[in-house]
Amino acid sequence: MATPGRRLPTAAVVLSGNELLDGRTRDTNGEYVSADLSARGCKVVSVLTVADDAERLTAALRFSLAAEPDVLVIGGGLGTTHDDLTAACLAQALGVALAEHPEALAMVEERVRAVASRRHLDFDEVFPLARRQALLPAGAGVVPPAGVAPGIAARAGRTRIYAFPGVPFEFERMWAGVAAELDAAGLFPDVAVRIVRVFGVGELQVAPILDGMRHDLLETGINVGRGEVTVRLRFVRGDAAARQAGAVVEALQAGAPVFSVDGRTIDDIVADALRARGLTVAVAESCTGGLLGGRLTERPGSSDYVLGGVISYADSVKAGLLRVPTAMLAQYGAVSEEVARAMAEGARAATGADCALAVTGVAGPDGGTPEKPVGLVHVACSVEGATRAVRGSFPGDRATVREFSTTAALHLLRQTLGL
Amino acid sequence: MATPGRRLPTAAVVLSGNELLDGRTRDTNGEYVSADLSARGCKVVSVLTVADDAERLTAALRFSLAAEPDVLVIGGGLGTTHDDLTAACLAQALGVALAEHPEALAMVEERVRAVASRRHLDFDEVFPLARRQALLPAGAGVVPPAGVAPGIAARAGRTRIYAFPGVPFEFERMWAGVAAELDAAGLFPDVAVRIVRVFGVGELQVAPILDGMRHDLLETGINVGRGEVTVRLRFVRGDAAARQAGAVVEALQAGAPVFSVDGRTIDDIVADALRARGLTVAVAESCTGGLLGGRLTERPGSSDYVLGGVISYADSVKAGLLRVPTAMLAQYGAVSEEVARAMAEGARAATGADCALAVTGVAGPDGGTPEKPVGLVHVACSVEGATRAVRGSFPGDRATVREFSTTAALHLLRQTLGL
Repeated sequence: MATPGRRLPTAAVVLSGNELLDGRTRDTNGEYVSADLSARGCKVVSVLTVADDAERLTAALRFSLAAEPDVLVIGGGLGTTHDDLTAACLAQALGVALAEHPEALAMVEERVRAVASRRHLDFDEVFPLARRQALLPAGAGVVPPAGVAPGIAARAGRTRIYAFPGVPFEFERMWAGVAAELDAAGLFPDVAVRIVRVFGVGELQVAPILDGMRHDLLETGINVGRGEVTVRLRFVRGDAAARQAGAVVEALQAGAPVFSVDGRTIDDIVADALRARGLTVAVAESCTGGLLGGRLTERPGSSDYVLGGVISYADSVKAGLLRVPTAMLAQYGAVSEEVARAMAEGARAATGADCALAVTGVAGPDGGTPEKPVGLVHVACSVEGATRAVRGSFPGDRATVREFSTTAALHLLRQTLGL
Repeated sequence: MATPGRRLPTAAVVLSGNELLDGRTRDTNGEYVSADLSARGCKVVSVLTVADDAERLTAALRFSLAAEPDVLVIGGGLGTTHDDLTAACLAQALGVALAEHPEALAMVEERVRAVASRRHLDFDEVFPLARRQALLPAGAGVVPPAGVAPGIAARAGRTRIYAFPGVPFEFERMWAGVAAELDAAGLFPDVAVRIVRVFGVGELQVAPILDGMRHDLLETGINVGRGEVTVRLRFVRGDAAARQAGAVVEALQAGAPVFSVDGRTIDDIVADALRARGLTVAVAESCTGGLLGGRLTERPGSSDYVLGGVISYADSVKAGLLRVPTAMLAQYGAVSEEVARAMAEGARAATGADCALAVTGVAGPDGGTPEKPVGLVHVACSVEGATRAVRGSFPGDRATVREFSTTAALHLLRQTLGL
């Protein structure tokens, strides 16, 4: 990235845990902290997940420190079991010994007393196991725990190092506290991000527009996901860079079906519009089985505009709760524009919502036919006096088809609302 | 891991892409290939995600190769844009030049012709951009594309290296082809895995049981997620190791509420039981907003036993479609055992399902009161002649509370079915 003036701070993340590597647990910490660091203007240069193995974890910490990031965030390996190696490996990577930290010990004792009392355990039996959580690299500071295990704050050259337990809500809460301190200390720069979101065309149609514009003052990224193409422009605030970014945004708007230039996702746009206009929404879901409802209710406060709806996975539910005529189901099949329309209208009638979205499709991997292949999805949106429908043909596996379907439904609602 | 005889093969994964580091896209490739490698008896030692930066990507490849894994899988960076650096960085890490690979070129040309025709693009305009996808490290082989970009197959010492595009369905399909070849070549060992799943207690109650048993022939892992504790024992097949694993499993069954010792998840157990008994299930969801239905319909063929249900996010839908008495809603509130029971019974009546699960709770972050704090969830399960309810108090953020609620509902169904 060629930017005049201040260099963007960099960050690296190390996550420790066999369960993150063998498919048992989906990492959320790496994703969370990367997104937060990015939003604060840090460039995340690596996220490295390693097995609970002292040698590999120490090597991972050394690899990450070798890039001399401004911040190194470590997640996991601070529990009570023999798998929990973070403090020891960090001490080794820093070339210091482990030592019991009095303040950390007091925190652990207090938390273990509370857990023991809540779970009716014998404190004297569980405390010896928990006590090792107070062993920190010599010279390190302690980050107060959100659960039982305290975190570690250390330093290596320019790099500020923080280690938190891997339990997501502990990790997130403890990072939030540290990030607020770093922010107050002025670590994060004055960075601007412009995000352009496109729906309806692929990367091959968007990339040439970006490549055709001057962007030497911008860090650019383009990616495809959930059926959308997202272009991200990041720059240290300044007139020249802002002008360059503005020109790129305009070129994209002129050449591609851009639906957002202010950072808002399709979920944000739909939620904001429903709330602003005092409209309610309902769903009628076949192949998505509830995922669209789950997505609409992801955000706090969604009860202001989401009424609910019907998961009509079986045709009997389409006919019963949504009043889709059985003759229509027989004539056109459950995966058809006609049924999608009837489902949307039925959901609106059944719930009294102002708008209703319906999804019916072949998510696969089985059930496809030459006329209705896997990936074929009909989406409908009903509002008073009008029902619109679109047909999607989505590539990918079952989970991808289902996720793309929810995205397509949200875009149809956006278009129906005239946005 | 102390194992007699054959050493377990190891694997490392490198993922390239700014979008994976700044929160725009959730990685699925690392998770997918790690799980698959683990299931095949490989020990995944690291998953390293790096920015689209030539220096960092080359360093990441060198770090991963330094551990001398048997397999190195690389995802992303094989597209057509200036961000796509994998071939060049791999060439640099291997100390060879880039060269246009004739077979790869033919594959790219064929695929671009197909895309251009489908999307009504001018082939001669898009082909020059796509052509760079045929540049591979000298001496490397090509993996046929699942989309447009071919993959790379290379070798460094003991390490077999494979690079695939980052688009998940392309990555997954191309890895599946390579894995089948490696399997046929005998790379994967005869490894046994025993997985013990516990619901209802925490890690602090499970870890001491494991620690109290001899397990020097086993690779052990313990982790907490979705409200469950999972213990995983892995070993190279042999009588002594199998006996040790058997003894650990028995000790866990004796000392903790174990619900699975055969690898099946709660989702598997519920799905298998419903299918085997010819039972159908419906849902009534408030705070989960459809996620339980989405989870029940995750697997192909779930239409054999999932009918659907009602997302009763608003009280009006609880009263309307589920026939929850408005007086009950007024008296006990929507988050109450009474309403959970009435929702489950209402869902069964509305859909004709044999079993129905209901969830109502305070997902947060707002809406909590001293009597009904954030994290309080009532779950009910109705079958003919009986409705059972449980009350959960889940820690964590909105997404965690909602996910734990779906897990609790599945366990209540399991218990109701006498499993």
